[in-house]
Amino acid sequence: MHVTIAEAEKIVEAARDKALAIGTQMCIAVVDSGGNLVAFGRMDGAQLASISISEHKARTAATFRRPTRVFEDGIQRSDYKYILSLDGVIASRGGIPLVEDGKLIGAIGCSGAAGSQDEAACKVGAATINK
Amino acid sequence: MHVTIAEAEKIVEAARDKALAIGTQMCIAVVDSGGNLVAFGRMDGAQLASISISEHKARTAATFRRPTRVFEDGIQRSDYKYILSLDGVIASRGGIPLVEDGKLIGAIGCSGAAGSQDEAACKVGAATINK
Amino acid sequence: MHVTIAEAEKIVEAARDKALAIGTQMCIAVVDSGGNLVAFGRMDGAQLASISISEHKARTAATFRRPTRVFEDGIQRSDYKYILSLDGVIASRGGIPLVEDGKLIGAIGCSGAAGSQDEAACKVGAATINK
Amino acid sequence: MHVTIAEAEKIVEAARDKALAIGTQMCIAVVDSGGNLVAFGRMDGAQLASISISEHKARTAATFRRPTRVFEDGIQRSDYKYILSLDGVIASRGGIPLVEDGKLIGAIGCSGAAGSQDEAACKVGAATINK
Repeated sequence: MHVTIAEAEKIVEAARDKALAIGTQMCIAVVDSGGNLVAFGRMDGAQLASISISEHKARTAATFRRPTRVFEDGIQRSDYKYILSLDGVIASRGGIPLVEDGKLIGAIGCSGAAGSQDEAACKVGAATINK
Repeated sequence: MHVTIAEAEKIVEAARDKALAIGTQMCIAVVDSGGNLVAFGRMDGAQLASISISEHKARTAATFRRPTRVFEDGIQRSDYKYILSLDGVIASRGGIPLVEDGKLIGAIGCSGAAGSQDEAACKVGAATINK
Repeated sequence: MHVTIAEAEKIVEAARDKALAIGTQMCIAVVDSGGNLVAFGRMDGAQLASISISEHKARTAATFRRPTRVFEDGIQRSDYKYILSLDGVIASRGGIPLVEDGKLIGAIGCSGAAGSQDEAACKVGAATINK
Repeated sequence: MHVTIAEAEKIVEAARDKALAIGTQMCIAVVDSGGNLVAFGRMDGAQLASISISEHKARTAATFRRPTRVFEDGIQRSDYKYILSLDGVIASRGGIPLVEDGKLIGAIGCSGAAGSQDEAACKVGAATINK
């Protein structure tokens, strides 16, 4: 199962509203359960580096089926440094799986602000799907 | 000068309406004048290969400042085969520059259907900017 | 807004004068605000690896809109190791944004000597723009 | 033997003067005899696609030790289409080796205008070395 384009655009819009509400500019990406891009938006003023980072976060959340936060948390502990060598990982908050009826249908990734802000926007976007 | 996210989303929407009207599924990408992604949408059912092709078309149209159609036309003629060796070229219709007040502000790329259909959707998207 | 070629060449020249003054050889790259190369010079005797490193530093400074030093400093602290997993980052001093009238117009990157020397040359180059 | 940075900058300047004189904007790259970048300048208004194309032309001219024109000419003839499959080739005029005392010391590549104009600027640049 995959997130639809209609759902993906609602997710991007919801995340963007959150980003605006907290006074930040982000890139927001939604991928399907295959890790392939469905929708993307770069807010005016968002840093260019966040284009690929937001998509990377979304892809990591989808293909590892977990929030990218677990990787960031993991490398804080010296015994999890190996995470940085795993193909496809991005160890930074702001990537969250989208789950419908217990099934992965995609993921959202946000980048451009502080990690906690990126994650906050992600959560708002994901909340349109994850109940 | 760069296309804004508000403009880019209108462009994607207009191109998608056209794609729907002609019964096709496409990926639609909008980049700014530096070739960096601003907005992207993959219609339900569009082939995955078109994700990168649509962005490539948009980037080529922006960085060469001409429709990708000129490259497709060129390689039909035996004396322009060298085009295939130029870095960054995609020689396929469906990439069109966005020009506002005579200045390049970005480009749109469409992929997923026949070349003529991709280009038709591009034109409708670009028409929201190019007067 | 973008740095002009005339400005970029002055930046390269100023950074090179500094590099010469401190007895080093560097590669010096200037990119525009979209991260695209404007001017580049490799001093006689500079190591080849610094060709891409100098451009990478400049691009990172432009696309993240901050000196690359913040990334080098960050990974010295155990809680910022995730920086190494962010797309496009180079965590090494010697990349500085160029800011004119409060707007990013590009960035300079220097590589070839010690990090502190690379950064010193960058600062001299950037000072022709940043007041 | 390698072109020096002082020579390379004179080459770029001479090629640019020619480009200006014929009313065009180009990217101009000079590589050494190892194919590695020495100097680069993007004239204001030159298309972004020419950044990599100009360097590619210079590298091809250096590493194949012949003008890129021979590859463009070659693929005009149906029996030389295999050229497009050779690693590193760019089959487009505007790349010329730099030869001093009968020895290759580098190459210049120009891109941004018509092929004949790119080549004309290259020749002027190369003429500062090739006697």
